[in-house]
Amino acid sequence: MDHTERSKFHRRRDRGSHDWDLIFEILDAGLVAHVGFCAADQMFVIPMTYGRDGRTLFLHGSVASRLLRELERGVQVCVTVTLIDGLVLSRSAFDHSMNYRSVVTFGQAQIVADREEKLAALRLISEHLIAGRWSEVRAPSVKELNATTVLKVSIDEASAKVRRGPPQDEESDLKHPVWAGVLPLDLKALPPIPDDNLYEGTPIPAYVLQYIARRRAAVIK
Amino acid sequence: MDHTERSKFHRRRDRGSHDWDLIFEILDAGLVAHVGFCAADQMFVIPMTYGRDGRTLFLHGSVASRLLRELERGVQVCVTVTLIDGLVLSRSAFDHSMNYRSVVTFGQAQIVADREEKLAALRLISEHLIAGRWSEVRAPSVKELNATTVLKVSIDEASAKVRRGPPQDEESDLKHPVWAGVLPLDLKALPPIPDDNLYEGTPIPAYVLQYIARRRAAVIK
Repeated sequence: MDHTERSKFHRRRDRGSHDWDLIFEILDAGLVAHVGFCAADQMFVIPMTYGRDGRTLFLHGSVASRLLRELERGVQVCVTVTLIDGLVLSRSAFDHSMNYRSVVTFGQAQIVADREEKLAALRLISEHLIAGRWSEVRAPSVKELNATTVLKVSIDEASAKVRRGPPQDEESDLKHPVWAGVLPLDLKALPPIPDDNLYEGTPIPAYVLQYIARRRAAVIK
Repeated sequence: MDHTERSKFHRRRDRGSHDWDLIFEILDAGLVAHVGFCAADQMFVIPMTYGRDGRTLFLHGSVASRLLRELERGVQVCVTVTLIDGLVLSRSAFDHSMNYRSVVTFGQAQIVADREEKLAALRLISEHLIAGRWSEVRAPSVKELNATTVLKVSIDEASAKVRRGPPQDEESDLKHPVWAGVLPLDLKALPPIPDDNLYEGTPIPAYVLQYIARRRAAVIK
């Protein structure tokens, strides 16, 4: 892959990467992408759910949305996914930072018109959000499929940025008498809230329990 | 405030709001904003930390960044903040959703050149990330201030979107024999990791403990 000017790293080269394995790992770990596009000389950045198949992202929204109508025309988009991993508390104000993983992708958005492809994309997005759910729920009707817009973004270029680890204070700041370290942050699952209309005794499915376990909240004393 | 075409709601009016209290509440609860802008016909969406003072957002990055150099020219930006609150698992694939709070703002980015204003903005950003930290750490030197770019975005227009509560299945789907409900998600703090070079016995400050308590991980059995 060629990296043009837009995805080159101009600073913090140590934090930047064009490694596809890392890029995919971050994309697969995210839940919401921020999709940027220009329409009529106006910038928009909209949160959307997504799924990934190789170097293709599928984005999901409603057919009624003005924004998706703009995207349908095949505009250039920038799709960014950011994972917040923690606050980095150094001794100096200047060296404060965040631990994070982010991916910035560039591509062109196109509408998915074919019904089978649309269904496959919706399944992909659903499985990305919570694996195992799709096969258990009522599948989309033709009417529902027609009311759903799915967009396909072929990733032309992408870059990842990652900051990990402890604060990086200047040697001369180490004597500053203040606590320093990392406050790790993570998106965690809280106890599930069953729907009021649920048939009594309907069990929580295994894949939901697995999802919760994966995002289990750590206990802080 | 007038709402022009760009911040009107074309669908899901029930989820949309132009209430400033709600907009501020969401902005104040977020940690990272996704900042979108166009430079040389190319869209960029970049995660940045931020702080807020009334209807002004302050964005922080490095003076070396190409992206910030573009912003310095006074370009239009769209700054979006999204909080993920949970997965909404309905009986039908179509009615699946997320609980979330998001704010989309439109404004013009300008560089903060005045040193005092820059210092005040950095303090604001720091206090936004973790209140109480700023007064305890080593303040920025003149050299560090000069190496830091702070941008000011006056919010011309903004809108909030919120989805809360249980799944909204069609009546005819309620009989579908699958668990339905909400899996709440939240950004939680994990146990703090003290820096290796910390003087032995340096206590964790009260505001850090408060921060952790606020983001305390719930215990899931």
